[in-house]
Amino acid sequence: MAGSSFGTIFRITTWGESHGKALGVVIDGCPAGLPLEESDIQRYLDRRKPGASSVSTPRKEEDLVEILSGVFEGRTTGTPISLMIRNTSQISRDYSEIADCFRPGHADYTFDQKYGFRDYRGGGRSSGRETAGRVAAGAVACKALSQLGVDVCAYTRSIGPVEADLTRFDREAILSTPTAMPDREADRAAVAYLEAAKRETDSVGGCMECRVEGLPAGIGEPVFEKLDANLAKAVMSIGAVKAVEIGDGCQVSRRKGSENNDGFQMQDGRLYKTSNHAGGILGGISDGDTLLIRAHVKPTPSIYLPQDTVNRAGENTVLRIKGRHDPVIVPRAVVVMECMTALTLLDAMMVNLSARMDSLVDFYTRA
Amino acid sequence: MAGSSFGTIFRITTWGESHGKALGVVIDGCPAGLPLEESDIQRYLDRRKPGASSVSTPRKEEDLVEILSGVFEGRTTGTPISLMIRNTSQISRDYSEIADCFRPGHADYTFDQKYGFRDYRGGGRSSGRETAGRVAAGAVACKALSQLGVDVCAYTRSIGPVEADLTRFDREAILSTPTAMPDREADRAAVAYLEAAKRETDSVGGCMECRVEGLPAGIGEPVFEKLDANLAKAVMSIGAVKAVEIGDGCQVSRRKGSENNDGFQMQDGRLYKTSNHAGGILGGISDGDTLLIRAHVKPTPSIYLPQDTVNRAGENTVLRIKGRHDPVIVPRAVVVMECMTALTLLDAMMVNLSARMDSLVDFYTRA
Amino acid sequence: MAGSSFGTIFRITTWGESHGKALGVVIDGCPAGLPLEESDIQRYLDRRKPGASSVSTPRKEEDLVEILSGVFEGRTTGTPISLMIRNTSQISRDYSEIADCFRPGHADYTFDQKYGFRDYRGGGRSSGRETAGRVAAGAVACKALSQLGVDVCAYTRSIGPVEADLTRFDREAILSTPTAMPDREADRAAVAYLEAAKRETDSVGGCMECRVEGLPAGIGEPVFEKLDANLAKAVMSIGAVKAVEIGDGCQVSRRKGSENNDGFQMQDGRLYKTSNHAGGILGGISDGDTLLIRAHVKPTPSIYLPQDTVNRAGENTVLRIKGRHDPVIVPRAVVVMECMTALTLLDAMMVNLSARMDSLVDFYTRA
Amino acid sequence: MAGSSFGTIFRITTWGESHGKALGVVIDGCPAGLPLEESDIQRYLDRRKPGASSVSTPRKEEDLVEILSGVFEGRTTGTPISLMIRNTSQISRDYSEIADCFRPGHADYTFDQKYGFRDYRGGGRSSGRETAGRVAAGAVACKALSQLGVDVCAYTRSIGPVEADLTRFDREAILSTPTAMPDREADRAAVAYLEAAKRETDSVGGCMECRVEGLPAGIGEPVFEKLDANLAKAVMSIGAVKAVEIGDGCQVSRRKGSENNDGFQMQDGRLYKTSNHAGGILGGISDGDTLLIRAHVKPTPSIYLPQDTVNRAGENTVLRIKGRHDPVIVPRAVVVMECMTALTLLDAMMVNLSARMDSLVDFYTRA
Repeated sequence: MAGSSFGTIFRITTWGESHGKALGVVIDGCPAGLPLEESDIQRYLDRRKPGASSVSTPRKEEDLVEILSGVFEGRTTGTPISLMIRNTSQISRDYSEIADCFRPGHADYTFDQKYGFRDYRGGGRSSGRETAGRVAAGAVACKALSQLGVDVCAYTRSIGPVEADLTRFDREAILSTPTAMPDREADRAAVAYLEAAKRETDSVGGCMECRVEGLPAGIGEPVFEKLDANLAKAVMSIGAVKAVEIGDGCQVSRRKGSENNDGFQMQDGRLYKTSNHAGGILGGISDGDTLLIRAHVKPTPSIYLPQDTVNRAGENTVLRIKGRHDPVIVPRAVVVMECMTALTLLDAMMVNLSARMDSLVDFYTRA
Repeated sequence: MAGSSFGTIFRITTWGESHGKALGVVIDGCPAGLPLEESDIQRYLDRRKPGASSVSTPRKEEDLVEILSGVFEGRTTGTPISLMIRNTSQISRDYSEIADCFRPGHADYTFDQKYGFRDYRGGGRSSGRETAGRVAAGAVACKALSQLGVDVCAYTRSIGPVEADLTRFDREAILSTPTAMPDREADRAAVAYLEAAKRETDSVGGCMECRVEGLPAGIGEPVFEKLDANLAKAVMSIGAVKAVEIGDGCQVSRRKGSENNDGFQMQDGRLYKTSNHAGGILGGISDGDTLLIRAHVKPTPSIYLPQDTVNRAGENTVLRIKGRHDPVIVPRAVVVMECMTALTLLDAMMVNLSARMDSLVDFYTRA
Repeated sequence: MAGSSFGTIFRITTWGESHGKALGVVIDGCPAGLPLEESDIQRYLDRRKPGASSVSTPRKEEDLVEILSGVFEGRTTGTPISLMIRNTSQISRDYSEIADCFRPGHADYTFDQKYGFRDYRGGGRSSGRETAGRVAAGAVACKALSQLGVDVCAYTRSIGPVEADLTRFDREAILSTPTAMPDREADRAAVAYLEAAKRETDSVGGCMECRVEGLPAGIGEPVFEKLDANLAKAVMSIGAVKAVEIGDGCQVSRRKGSENNDGFQMQDGRLYKTSNHAGGILGGISDGDTLLIRAHVKPTPSIYLPQDTVNRAGENTVLRIKGRHDPVIVPRAVVVMECMTALTLLDAMMVNLSARMDSLVDFYTRA
Repeated sequence: MAGSSFGTIFRITTWGESHGKALGVVIDGCPAGLPLEESDIQRYLDRRKPGASSVSTPRKEEDLVEILSGVFEGRTTGTPISLMIRNTSQISRDYSEIADCFRPGHADYTFDQKYGFRDYRGGGRSSGRETAGRVAAGAVACKALSQLGVDVCAYTRSIGPVEADLTRFDREAILSTPTAMPDREADRAAVAYLEAAKRETDSVGGCMECRVEGLPAGIGEPVFEKLDANLAKAVMSIGAVKAVEIGDGCQVSRRKGSENNDGFQMQDGRLYKTSNHAGGILGGISDGDTLLIRAHVKPTPSIYLPQDTVNRAGENTVLRIKGRHDPVIVPRAVVVMECMTALTLLDAMMVNLSARMDSLVDFYTRA
């Protein structure tokens, strides 16, 4: 069944395996007239490129994007935008060990159970490399959102026990530190922590956060297409994410109503909330305040330590994973979270165009 | 835009406002031949009925379900099943205060921003009463799942600081305690805590959990229709839920890979996992182990304490909510979580029917 | 699988069997703020009511519609509109003959093959009565379209060999003649033809046509959601329709390009087509000209003449259908065609809102 | 809005413009385990290749397909299959005339109205070249259908006034004659007719037909996803098709019920229909008999004769189309009709897997 598409009006379909010929995405439903060139997309793909630092795999993936359709004379035409990234770094290697056994924490076993067999090269479709298509499409969504005054920004909130101090929020650091933290001090502590984990041939988990400014009130559709429900799906669909929080998230279950409710007040003729425990969403609809989403990411399952597992013949065995792997997933996943958020928001904003009859009348009967 | 449907093959559409004439749901895509009668559904609706205890609103809602179509001679026919619940308890009352101002923590403001106005009677479509349709449909899904050997069970995990001790797990207690906790001792402590909160005219939050036994491996569709992604959406779409966790959830962000990976082993010719941090899902596909989902629920936003807010004229005002409200949402939401989980799983199991070519050949070419 | 929904944004789901408790429809995605009352809908339902003339079945079906949700203080709220029609005229009768055998030209055999059994009372879900839900929803779509300046008008084009002369087009006649022809002279000839067929205890086929004025250019989505493709689906989904034509339809296969192309010309500063062979659609997108669709409808399959058939036990038998049936389907199907066309057009106009980036920017950044 | 996808479970998304870098399709939801190689697809693409005869445009388009993902070791993996065809023959030429004016019978005007501008090179997305993606995907569907015992065969029924005599049906001729007629005698007459039209610098219309053998009874979903409704949409979405007929099609509107009903009879323990006016579909569900669909195709709108039209500046002008064009669309569209039919049928067969509860129980509880 078709599970590779996301969105209702601004709808993307990703394709490609880790070590196949290429990966890509088709964006269907992008409005006509958006200025777009390959460099707009490449900028985002470069953020998930490995090999950028000591705490990332030294594999080289250039991930050069090619626009194959849907753009004419520098603008989107309203027809499908096909984006492709050729795989260039797959070297011929021996996959026999992972082909024959089920790596703990990976999808080897479940793919085999579902489909009867799998493309075992580098994890095939279940590889994190699959997210390249999401990021390429998300870059287009981000560009469209910026024209609508919406700014989406994801970053690493914590790595293992090391948490970013948001009072020192430095947006530029997100793009330049190895951890994608918005706090250079925490970044240095996290790098030290990661290097220790690498020495133990182990891996670590972390937390990422996304905040959105400029989103108007009224976005999201009751009762199943609520904005928070779709954001939860979008973010939970990123491999290794095991929990999603909106606003104060898990903390609300220990709160009193008198603490948790956000009051409304007028100031200078504008309504605002006196606090934002809700994270910008009430009843599944945006309230005009800052949107806040958090995702908890498990440690990289590929570790060099020996692990008990089972092979395809149904025999117990011990696995020692070779190859080059990130000791933490979060820093390269931050841009994926930003993109999945952007895709969800842009689609929801397009869906919202038809909420009121007077907008339709206005659209079709003016001049 | 259409946001009131859920599911791809087993697809439900709910309708109705809190104080309208009726509420209901249409189930489209239910397989033919499932034995079904009204009592199968009524049993689930009764679990979300208020007025059952000292810690629930004393409002009376009988919520009697009527099957209007899709069942013939005691079995589903494969055509749409329409279920309706007449609203009988709406008493004529004065809504002027909530009609004119935005209740903190509610969707009044966001509905007004989206649609220009709203049905303010009892919260209209944003009321928790909307979930009656979900529960009616979920009861049908649960019945179908039981024929497939899948058992879905949700319960209250914690209320405020009071947590159920799962080593004392008592399934019968879920249905008979006022808190829907599976632990009678914790239930008593939680009731005491709730009564104290009621005396303070305040409300409290809580946490609910759902576990599923008997789900086969292989359910869920990469990469956007992953089982965990759809469960997250399903559960986050329940009003007041602010965080969703799968398996060990938030804890994974502080783990090492060596701690978090679940090993595989063979025993008596069957593969099993040596632990279940993953909560039964790997790569978005079920792994045959127990499925575990957790949801954090905010305190009831309707509190009797005075609150600062704004009216529709854009003036600051102080709101004192009247009427009868639950001091905690969780106990009545547990059955909603169970139903949303069941709807997600049944649909995913139906979607999975076409995963392999040999199943199609078998289906269409056998005798 | 879910097959009872139609539309993407303005999305309807119909339910109900011919002789069940009730029939109905849920409209999800109707914009907020459309004035709506039951009489707006009743007017359309009355047009498909039987018993109105000598050439219609004398069965009585009052078909009174009830609005159960989605309308507050006389306007749609943006939430699902649930419409129900109670079945009141089902009299207890003996269905044993049709329960046990497959009526030629009906769906008895195919429903049994698909689902294993069927609700045989009056054809169950495959009855023409199913269209009551479509008409109820279509009435709402027509009301919305009228606010957008779009006028949809269907009528009987021919009955057997008797064709309406459109040079005598009389719109009022569509609503007042027994045949729904826009030409009173042809109506009289058709009635005579029908009465002769009734005397022979036979039935006859016919052709219906729908024309739409005021539809702006630009509606329809390449390449699979073309306006003509969706209209063809909408109209072909009406029971008994066996062919659909757009514009000159079948005639184009015998034409030369020089005859069939419609030229463009400017007049008084406005572009128009010098002919309309295309029927208002070019490349699947409306061109601003009159939309023209035609549907060919088979004769009523329920005839009183004895017919060879097979029973459920797999034995040859002879069937003599009892009961009261229309000698022709078309006159009562005309309003169904009008409604299916309206539903298709309104949805397509809502979908088109997001075709251009500048519209989005305008919508979200103006005051 | 997203209009480039087709199908529910076996779902395709096409992309690409006539003179862009490439065209392609992503197939999502193809079951795992289907043997597939590029030559399976190339065979179908070669059937729509121009330049094969005197009655086809002498343009050269090699249309070599590349499988980019979803196939591993010669079998489909259940993940998206990405197919790409590089455009190689676009020569740099002067499009200024068609860029600036609206070609009669083409989508130039409607694309401009919808999107504000268009990719005018060779018709862009509205070109017949768009169907290359449909054919590539359809080839995969045909291969899957053949494993299910379903045979789909389309051919040219008539060109202008020259009709194939089906009593001389020669399947091999469909693939080898320039007209794709199954009757070599009619083919020769049609070629003569086409050459005369070419000399007049005019074009002609035609009719194509598709018949399907081996389709089991029970396929199609009431009431909006009926098999005939989806086939009508599929075929009407092919550019230039203006009418679609099922079975006896338009003829039924002049029939009596006693003539049009197909009787049922048992023979050798099997049920069959004594005639097939219905074309294999009753109540929107296949009845096990031969499926028959017909499509009427307008003459190629690109003709060399001078035509009155309007330019983008809103001035009357006379257009003389240059370049190389087919004098008739049908022979190259036949394979597109075959593929759209195959895509519709395979999807409907996959959807039908969940029609009965006992099938689900069997699937999940056997072994």
